[in-house]
Amino acid sequence: MATAFPGRVVIEEVRPTVDCGRLPAKATAGLPVQVSATVIADGHDLLLAWVRHGRPGNGAMSPAAPPAGWRELPLRLDKNDRYGGSLVAPRPGPWSFGVVAVADDYGSWLRDLRIRFDAGQEVGLELEEGALMAERRAQRQSLSGSDVRALTALTGTLRSDRESGPRVAAAGQPAALTLMQRTVDRSAATVAGPFPLWVDRELGGFSAWYEFFPRSEGTKGRPGSFASAAARLPAIAAMGFDIVYLPPIHPIGQSHRKGANNSLHPGPDEPGSPWAIGASGGGHTAVHPDLGTLADFDAFVETTRAAGLELALDYALQCSPDHPWVTEHPQWFRHRPDGSIRYAENPPKRYQDIFPINFDTEDRAALWNALRDVLMFWIGHGVRVFRVDNPHTKPLPFWEWLIAQVHRRHPDVIFLAEAFTRPAVMMRLATVGFTQSYTYFTWRNTKAELVEYLTELSEPQSVACFRPNFWVNTPDILHETLQHGGPAAFRLRLVLASMLAPSWGMYSGYELYEAAPVRAGSEEYLDSEKYQLRSREWHDPRSLAPGVTLVNQIRKRHREAIALLSTLHVHQVSSEHMLCVSRMSEDGSDVLLVIVNLDPHQAHEATTWLDLAALGISADRPFAAHDELTDTTYWWRGPANYVRLDPVVQPAHILHLRKL
Amino acid sequence: MATAFPGRVVIEEVRPTVDCGRLPAKATAGLPVQVSATVIADGHDLLLAWVRHGRPGNGAMSPAAPPAGWRELPLRLDKNDRYGGSLVAPRPGPWSFGVVAVADDYGSWLRDLRIRFDAGQEVGLELEEGALMAERRAQRQSLSGSDVRALTALTGTLRSDRESGPRVAAAGQPAALTLMQRTVDRSAATVAGPFPLWVDRELGGFSAWYEFFPRSEGTKGRPGSFASAAARLPAIAAMGFDIVYLPPIHPIGQSHRKGANNSLHPGPDEPGSPWAIGASGGGHTAVHPDLGTLADFDAFVETTRAAGLELALDYALQCSPDHPWVTEHPQWFRHRPDGSIRYAENPPKRYQDIFPINFDTEDRAALWNALRDVLMFWIGHGVRVFRVDNPHTKPLPFWEWLIAQVHRRHPDVIFLAEAFTRPAVMMRLATVGFTQSYTYFTWRNTKAELVEYLTELSEPQSVACFRPNFWVNTPDILHETLQHGGPAAFRLRLVLASMLAPSWGMYSGYELYEAAPVRAGSEEYLDSEKYQLRSREWHDPRSLAPGVTLVNQIRKRHREAIALLSTLHVHQVSSEHMLCVSRMSEDGSDVLLVIVNLDPHQAHEATTWLDLAALGISADRPFAAHDELTDTTYWWRGPANYVRLDPVVQPAHILHLRKL
Repeated sequence: MATAFPGRVVIEEVRPTVDCGRLPAKATAGLPVQVSATVIADGHDLLLAWVRHGRPGNGAMSPAAPPAGWRELPLRLDKNDRYGGSLVAPRPGPWSFGVVAVADDYGSWLRDLRIRFDAGQEVGLELEEGALMAERRAQRQSLSGSDVRALTALTGTLRSDRESGPRVAAAGQPAALTLMQRTVDRSAATVAGPFPLWVDRELGGFSAWYEFFPRSEGTKGRPGSFASAAARLPAIAAMGFDIVYLPPIHPIGQSHRKGANNSLHPGPDEPGSPWAIGASGGGHTAVHPDLGTLADFDAFVETTRAAGLELALDYALQCSPDHPWVTEHPQWFRHRPDGSIRYAENPPKRYQDIFPINFDTEDRAALWNALRDVLMFWIGHGVRVFRVDNPHTKPLPFWEWLIAQVHRRHPDVIFLAEAFTRPAVMMRLATVGFTQSYTYFTWRNTKAELVEYLTELSEPQSVACFRPNFWVNTPDILHETLQHGGPAAFRLRLVLASMLAPSWGMYSGYELYEAAPVRAGSEEYLDSEKYQLRSREWHDPRSLAPGVTLVNQIRKRHREAIALLSTLHVHQVSSEHMLCVSRMSEDGSDVLLVIVNLDPHQAHEATTWLDLAALGISADRPFAAHDELTDTTYWWRGPANYVRLDPVVQPAHILHLRKL
Repeated sequence: MATAFPGRVVIEEVRPTVDCGRLPAKATAGLPVQVSATVIADGHDLLLAWVRHGRPGNGAMSPAAPPAGWRELPLRLDKNDRYGGSLVAPRPGPWSFGVVAVADDYGSWLRDLRIRFDAGQEVGLELEEGALMAERRAQRQSLSGSDVRALTALTGTLRSDRESGPRVAAAGQPAALTLMQRTVDRSAATVAGPFPLWVDRELGGFSAWYEFFPRSEGTKGRPGSFASAAARLPAIAAMGFDIVYLPPIHPIGQSHRKGANNSLHPGPDEPGSPWAIGASGGGHTAVHPDLGTLADFDAFVETTRAAGLELALDYALQCSPDHPWVTEHPQWFRHRPDGSIRYAENPPKRYQDIFPINFDTEDRAALWNALRDVLMFWIGHGVRVFRVDNPHTKPLPFWEWLIAQVHRRHPDVIFLAEAFTRPAVMMRLATVGFTQSYTYFTWRNTKAELVEYLTELSEPQSVACFRPNFWVNTPDILHETLQHGGPAAFRLRLVLASMLAPSWGMYSGYELYEAAPVRAGSEEYLDSEKYQLRSREWHDPRSLAPGVTLVNQIRKRHREAIALLSTLHVHQVSSEHMLCVSRMSEDGSDVLLVIVNLDPHQAHEATTWLDLAALGISADRPFAAHDELTDTTYWWRGPANYVRLDPVVQPAHILHLRKL
């Protein structure tokens, strides 16, 4: 057999890639990333394919061996010429992978040898061809002494004058096949890549968020401060959250300040919206005087860490009319012909208390640098997580630049995009670097809506760049399901959010079933905390806090299954009110089946029709279904199993499936 | 308004692209190619996008203007931020296109102006902003005098001291909007591309093929020759075919020659398989002595042309044991340890009469050049169409090289891939240059199979590189539908092939309903013409030739609708036995609705549920449905219309729909 020529094996459609490899696909440190590619060649030869990965820039991608320090792992043949496997990147930052493929000369020869032998054909020449293959391989320079000896021995075995049967058997010994596949001549192998990955730390790929307003956590009727709000942190940590997210902590403008319930005529003591950033005391790098000083903030960060939590700040690129930049950098705002500045709008919403920033300014370099420096300032004070307000109203290339700037020095920083906008824009924000993204989850309530959305989110092209964060509520969004569904609705939405997305979030008050809108048909809260303080009795015995604690514990017990969107699978269940979704670890060893009754008002019963193959469960043996919510174990068998869920009792099963 | 910066508008997912633009997408000269892209930006601005196209290599892709000689056409906003349009490349060969996009500053301003005005807001400042926009534009250097005057006039109108109402109306005049959009500042526009296209001549994108064996068209019981076979050409042309395809015309080997019905023991006078190429008289550049001389071939080519047809030869890269190359270039074959050469196999099929070529030979350059020179030889004798035998058993990079080599000098050459293999390989052959491809059509007979397959073939990523050619039969494939369905099956499959694919083909004998397999359960013909001569009575009054003539006429009358796969649309019809598919020209002006009863044995009736929006037909007005098969016109209205098809009468409706 002469030398194969380069390019005979074709590699196509490598995933995960984004924008043809111009932008990195996402990975989470320590979690498997599914890699796949189409690998084809002429004829009927079997093929061998590997994924190789490591730090970028470590030399050229030679076919024979990966760059120094890289790892190489075999890919398995799935179907339709797709080869798949996974890689695990160990640390945050830039990473790189490629795919290598070559014809499996020995494996193909062995397959054909067996077919002929089983058909009773004379295989003497075939065996000699195999011997020649092994013999030529033994003569290659770069092999180890033990490999050469093994190859020489194989040559002898295949060439011996024993009968064909034993020689065919010897040829097919796993050791022989492995040896020959491992030493296959890769000089003409096809290489695809390298393709970039961006690896986030684990919190980027798996996190539970809690949002609260420190100013509401005061004592004795006074506005809260960092010092007083720190008292909430143990309870937040106890509920199992990872990240505590604060609305903007900066001075709030006086001019055009909003009053309670978005009133344009506030009283003298109304606090205003935290998103109206900037006053005489400072702007984006200052702390609201009611909250404390910068030192108080530093202490709060410390307390947060000590409680086992991480702090997320709100990065909102807009200014109240009183923000220092309005006078110091007028060119950073769009002035109207009469010199005035028009307030921000998101029709029909009007934000009379804020000015949008003019990214088209000729002073662009100074502006972009100043905005980056705001982030660097808070990073310098220990913050590593930012929830970004309305990024879709700021230029996409700005975010690409900014996130890259920050990640160059701090690859562990996490960015959450709060962009409720058109799908292509939401996806682009994720593509250019946002670690996580708010989603349409709050508006996906029926079975059909949820199935369609989950299917979309778990498609490989989406998984490659978009990490959904399912918020059950936000200060802007109190969905009518919660308004009318009572505590049962809060419980079922809690299960959906926490079990079906790698990250989820809750705005404080959810655990107390706060459900009053400002008016019928609105998604705004009555007496919204955006415009006034809101004091709560956290120790209400009816609080959902224990339920929140439970689901966060379940998440942590099944970390990989919950983090991996790629293994999410929707199963059939015979009721329009029931949703049945499985979550699974990469190797299939940890399987969660989540069944939710989407109707907060009525019990429903149904029969599942599980895709057992997708679950790796045999159809003819019983398996255990342990409900992690109730610690009850059911014994199921086959695809069809009965479920009944009464919202009064429990909204869902969260079943840990165990094969016997 | 300051200068917008580059990259603010993002262009993604441009189609058609293949392999991230590394390989050209396909286009047919004179036919529209659908171009689309995702175009997004921050905020709520409207965007403007164009496709530009022209000869490659004409300079860099500057945002402001396309390269010299290129055309630029607007793209329209469809949905989900996809912009679409089409381009028409005028001639075969390499072509190039790009997408340009920029924010529509005036259009966005106008939209917001109208919203505010209609809401009763004061718009004096808005109007001045518009005036400033026009004024700044008039000051740009590169505008024509008339543009400057028009812009100055618009400035004055917007700035006048008339009331707002008339000024708002003036701002929204189509001429003002067009002027401002046309003169938008494109210096910071985003450009995507250039992306390569390969343009085939029209026959590559739209063709009807007829295959026959000249040696069967003899007189007085003698084997046919080019001279005698030329007598068939007028009838083939009269049936409306474009291409007449001949199995290999070269000398046939004697060694291991196959006999009738694939017998390994032929009699002395058996002709053998034309695919066993090569004998003492020559190989791939020689003519079988029974067929005539090279001069006879040249005359046949001339006669073919005179009949309005084009000739396609069979390019089969394999050799009989008697082929001159076996002794002249032994290194072009794979020798076994005992020096012998193993015949070709496609398990379980064995081709004892042919040797495969060894593409791994170290003498690769000489081999590949020789194989290319075979093609160049026949091109020199006037052939411009090649049906390629089993390309999937030859290296994919070989085809990429070969087709490029030929196309560099002869961009009008058409290559048809006869590869019945796995989808990824079939697609790759198309991707690397094959003009057309055989498909799974013969094995797609039920409604479900056809709907799924047609949907797959009409997907944009497939249309970009794969041109299906639906053959109703081949010398290797007599599907059981034809074996058991009688003439009615032949008629319905004829309609399916000719109406649903841009190209279709028929192997001679189909029109005489030849339906006898070599044995039950086989797809091989009894007494296959591959191994023996077959004489036919073409003037049989029951011949399907008139039906073939009719469908080929219908195809030509609706050329663009049939040629464009991108506009193929499957409609619902209430019977499992009925298939309802529409074909349409790019602009929707020519609409064909094809309804086929897939059951050759029984009449069926059903009600359609047409997607009227896809057809561009209003739901509340009647429309004419003219059956081109019977010249009958039905008056239909709305989506639901009754159909009944009796296979005894006619298998299908081919309805030309006309709006009133």
